Amino acid sequence: MTPDIETVRELGRRHSNWGRWGADDERGTLNLVTPEMVVAAAGLVRQGKTISMALPYDEDGPQNGGLGRFNPIHLMIRDGADAVAGTSIRDFYGGVDKHFRGTDDIIIMPLQSGTQWDAFGHVVFEGHIFNGHGAEWVSSKGALKGDVANAARGMVGRGVLLDLPRALGVEWLEPGHAIDSHDLERAEEHAGLKVGAGDFVFVRTGNMASHRAAGGWGDYAGGEAPGLGLGSVEWVASRDIAAIAADTWGLEVRPNETPDVAQPLHIVFIVHMGLWLGEIFDLDPLAEDCAGDGVYEFLFCGPPLPFTRAVGSPLNPMAIK
Amino acid sequence: MTPDIETVRELGRRHSNWGRWGADDERGTLNLVTPEMVVAAAGLVRQGKTISMALPYDEDGPQNGGLGRFNPIHLMIRDGADAVAGTSIRDFYGGVDKHFRGTDDIIIMPLQSGTQWDAFGHVVFEGHIFNGHGAEWVSSKGALKGDVANAARGMVGRGVLLDLPRALGVEWLEPGHAIDSHDLERAEEHAGLKVGAGDFVFVRTGNMASHRAAGGWGDYAGGEAPGLGLGSVEWVASRDIAAIAADTWGLEVRPNETPDVAQPLHIVFIVHMGLWLGEIFDLDPLAEDCAGDGVYEFLFCGPPLPFTRAVGSPLNPMAIK
Amino acid sequence: MTPDIETVRELGRRHSNWGRWGADDERGTLNLVTPEMVVAAAGLVRQGKTISMALPYDEDGPQNGGLGRFNPIHLMIRDGADAVAGTSIRDFYGGVDKHFRGTDDIIIMPLQSGTQWDAFGHVVFEGHIFNGHGAEWVSSKGALKGDVANAARGMVGRGVLLDLPRALGVEWLEPGHAIDSHDLERAEEHAGLKVGAGDFVFVRTGNMASHRAAGGWGDYAGGEAPGLGLGSVEWVASRDIAAIAADTWGLEVRPNETPDVAQPLHIVFIVHMGLWLGEIFDLDPLAEDCAGDGVYEFLFCGPPLPFTRAVGSPLNPMAIK
Amino acid sequence: MTPDIETVRELGRRHSNWGRWGADDERGTLNLVTPEMVVAAAGLVRQGKTISMALPYDEDGPQNGGLGRFNPIHLMIRDGADAVAGTSIRDFYGGVDKHFRGTDDIIIMPLQSGTQWDAFGHVVFEGHIFNGHGAEWVSSKGALKGDVANAARGMVGRGVLLDLPRALGVEWLEPGHAIDSHDLERAEEHAGLKVGAGDFVFVRTGNMASHRAAGGWGDYAGGEAPGLGLGSVEWVASRDIAAIAADTWGLEVRPNETPDVAQPLHIVFIVHMGLWLGEIFDLDPLAEDCAGDGVYEFLFCGPPLPFTRAVGSPLNPMAIK
Repeated sequence: MTPDIETVRELGRRHSNWGRWGADDERGTLNLVTPEMVVAAAGLVRQGKTISMALPYDEDGPQNGGLGRFNPIHLMIRDGADAVAGTSIRDFYGGVDKHFRGTDDIIIMPLQSGTQWDAFGHVVFEGHIFNGHGAEWVSSKGALKGDVANAARGMVGRGVLLDLPRALGVEWLEPGHAIDSHDLERAEEHAGLKVGAGDFVFVRTGNMASHRAAGGWGDYAGGEAPGLGLGSVEWVASRDIAAIAADTWGLEVRPNETPDVAQPLHIVFIVHMGLWLGEIFDLDPLAEDCAGDGVYEFLFCGPPLPFTRAVGSPLNPMAIK
Repeated sequence: MTPDIETVRELGRRHSNWGRWGADDERGTLNLVTPEMVVAAAGLVRQGKTISMALPYDEDGPQNGGLGRFNPIHLMIRDGADAVAGTSIRDFYGGVDKHFRGTDDIIIMPLQSGTQWDAFGHVVFEGHIFNGHGAEWVSSKGALKGDVANAARGMVGRGVLLDLPRALGVEWLEPGHAIDSHDLERAEEHAGLKVGAGDFVFVRTGNMASHRAAGGWGDYAGGEAPGLGLGSVEWVASRDIAAIAADTWGLEVRPNETPDVAQPLHIVFIVHMGLWLGEIFDLDPLAEDCAGDGVYEFLFCGPPLPFTRAVGSPLNPMAIK
Repeated sequence: MTPDIETVRELGRRHSNWGRWGADDERGTLNLVTPEMVVAAAGLVRQGKTISMALPYDEDGPQNGGLGRFNPIHLMIRDGADAVAGTSIRDFYGGVDKHFRGTDDIIIMPLQSGTQWDAFGHVVFEGHIFNGHGAEWVSSKGALKGDVANAARGMVGRGVLLDLPRALGVEWLEPGHAIDSHDLERAEEHAGLKVGAGDFVFVRTGNMASHRAAGGWGDYAGGEAPGLGLGSVEWVASRDIAAIAADTWGLEVRPNETPDVAQPLHIVFIVHMGLWLGEIFDLDPLAEDCAGDGVYEFLFCGPPLPFTRAVGSPLNPMAIK
Repeated sequence: MTPDIETVRELGRRHSNWGRWGADDERGTLNLVTPEMVVAAAGLVRQGKTISMALPYDEDGPQNGGLGRFNPIHLMIRDGADAVAGTSIRDFYGGVDKHFRGTDDIIIMPLQSGTQWDAFGHVVFEGHIFNGHGAEWVSSKGALKGDVANAARGMVGRGVLLDLPRALGVEWLEPGHAIDSHDLERAEEHAGLKVGAGDFVFVRTGNMASHRAAGGWGDYAGGEAPGLGLGSVEWVASRDIAAIAADTWGLEVRPNETPDVAQPLHIVFIVHMGLWLGEIFDLDPLAEDCAGDGVYEFLFCGPPLPFTRAVGSPLNPMAIK
């Protein structure tokens, strides 16, 4: 039977975390990370490697204008060419030369245009965001509840890479591949570990690598892609993880398995479970490294920037091994 | 004798790191952080605390328009009010209701408007940036050399808080207080440690706290402030630190000690030494914590975001204890 | 008796133009301008003078951040300093020098940050915009009804300057001065004309001049100001004018005469009458000219820019005499 | 013989207007418009028609990212959906309901992303802009000389439409068609008039119409196109016109006739002659109207917006007949 809105509602009800950490909670699954877990995760740092999972933020990013998302626009306010042309002092220092020539720049970017965390305020389902707050808390003023700054002091713990292509023996998962619990368990086995409470899970589908191989982003943003399927919910929910991120535009398999529901796992994970989702993480360098040393766990440090009232945030997620 | 441009040139010559890590190097003092140091720093995580040093990025930030810097402008592309008003489907999903209602937002911000790293391309002195590259490498296109993305895979190691006010027994340092090597040594003693190679040093002046006490930012951006003085250079250079950041707008004491040179330490530290400077770090929560447990060292993780060709970057610097 | 929301509702009902030009009309009082009027207005051009009523759009504008409005931010994409520094070809022309060096720039601005027309979508009253359309037509996507582009092919006709200060023999009207029909009639007499159907009326209060004399914008944006009062409605409505603009931030007297209703005339004029309102028009050069030649009527040409779905637009309004 | 940089230099020398209106002049050919011409132009208004030549400014514009130019980005600061959701008062009026609900929006746009005037500061040739000012006058701060605001009080006079396709009996000129003096004379004959001093000339190539017929902008921005060729310079220069605009992205024929010089006429017209150039003017509605009534001259009113230090400006150019 084709899954539909009722399937999604049922999954949401079954795995709801509304109220689990108090009626006012806005940190969701980050509550699952204990100080002991942070200490234990730091113990995974044995080689002194630091690996970034961030894609560069620039005009060559994956956005294509869909949903109003564009690639970051970077502009200089003042620059070194002004110094060469001799105009800096005239233009920026009131005509008084004190030997110093500074440069400055600005960025204009959708907060979800590249490597990003989704805040709880990013998804509304049937009038509510996570923990039952009404959608009206996310207005033109931004997310008065459920903003990304709620995670600003967290996002540190054990990170685990699940390299699906390597686990399944393929170069990359094909678009439409709905990752299920079985796939995830095979990846755990391949990684030689078991995902548990408070973990930060990074699911590599190989989708970014496949676009790289093709020489361009193509339909990476919004197009067909491998990703988590409805069959992954049981695994994700039972493990009590802190966050999950992938190397795809939208984390979920596309086309979605529910013809009548877009991004159903965003509804289950974000709205009902209060689970932090990450997207457009570049997991290729990390995967390369893990394949090399056989170690798939590490200290993860990847807080969002504390953008007040924002529903998402760029970040530079670090794996420290 | 009043220090002047010759003083600055001499300090620059004496402490120059041009060529030290190769003619093409753009990572500067980050080269001083070894894998062993990262492992050792991870060993400092004993309590599982995670403390952010980032100021919220929003309209209430410290900028006042000087140098073309303004506080971040945050706008929603689509929001929960649209969901309530029933317009989301019409406006963003082509009229087809698939139960999902997403929200999105954008940010417009100078990259140096809040908590930030300065990239090497941020300062030009006598025609050059760090390592001798010409100023023409930082044009309207951005920093083709010396951009902030060079640090994207680093900025992890031992962090040390030097809480000057607590070390010197005052509430905060006064504007005009030029921190020298002696002050820094007293802060080391107070912290019960010695700063060494590859360390990330956080210098708390109390300047942010004093503005908080005054109820507003006032002249925080660009006005008089305590900060590092010329007398700190010997200490900073001899310790071979990886980076240094403060809770002030510009790291250096203001008014500058050199009447004819603006921000002389930016010239010595960034242009000649290739030292990473951080500004507008909110060190008050960390200082409170360190005063409480008496532990002034921690694992630091604070990479910039990889903004291509940018001369600065916001970040969420984390102290993990 | 103090006027209140009931006063406003009654004025709205009495002067409502809903349906007057059809149920789908979005041009409102611009419908009152006939081709004959345009021809007649062109006949007023006798000296060949062209006078702009626009304030420069730049960082020195009157905005102070209130309501999220800031002054225009102008940035260069590429510039002449790049040409001098020799970086243009490398950065913008793929390394091939074809002798041409272009420059480019961008603007970031609230559409109502300077001299501006208000579109009908700019004001919602009790759930509706002009002509009875629901407020949901103006969502995060913009004004699907009532946008400023509806006026893009109009805004040409007879312009009339009503110079209140000169008519009343003062340097400028004081803040709190509520301009009424009697004041407007005195200004007509002073101008030696009578305002009629399809006219574009420019009301000079001297408020901009008074801030100029004070040497700064002060509380120009949002503060106390002279302006149209409730007592002007009868005059405005009976004359069937096409548009009315003033040299103030908000056209209306401030504080508003209705303690419980903000900007009541915006509700009556825009929402009920479908009258085009202009704000922050710099009428001082025009007033100077009119005082010189004694001619207070002219051909007006001042269309908004056709920003799709926008609720306001900057413009360069021209008086041609 | 293939024209080259020497051809361009020679044309520039021959038609140079440097110094013609004084060493400090920044208005160039606008100086050619006399008050008498404005009065005479107003006399052309006989039917009361007002026709806009502006393309809508929105996300569907012709830009494709080339040269850093993108289509306008329009965002709401507050909107009607907030009013429906009941969040306006909470978010924007400090919790006090005074019945008024305003909306606001912002625009982020390259000033040359749509219908536009080029300012003199837009083109640098061999180190100079018009009238011999050095390129260093156009820095990261913008155009301290040669900005678009110099035209803010002008751009009113006789407008003339030269409808090349109708004159030459084709649907549109083909890409690569270099319009010469002979073509322009045929268009004058077709229009039944002769272009003279101080005229504003609108050259329709049909290029916009051809892209419309093709259903998309394709390579409109920067691709091959019909346009003015080197053979038009004599005609343009000898007529002493005030400005010339076309319905193409770059006014000039593309590929350019000079393999070694990009946009040679920009160099001759803007840098040497101080002639105002307009681009991306939508001349189709005007052409349709002129073909209908046989009248190809009109009062033109099309000032740029006074963006301080800008090198271009969007506008809403009006033909009034």
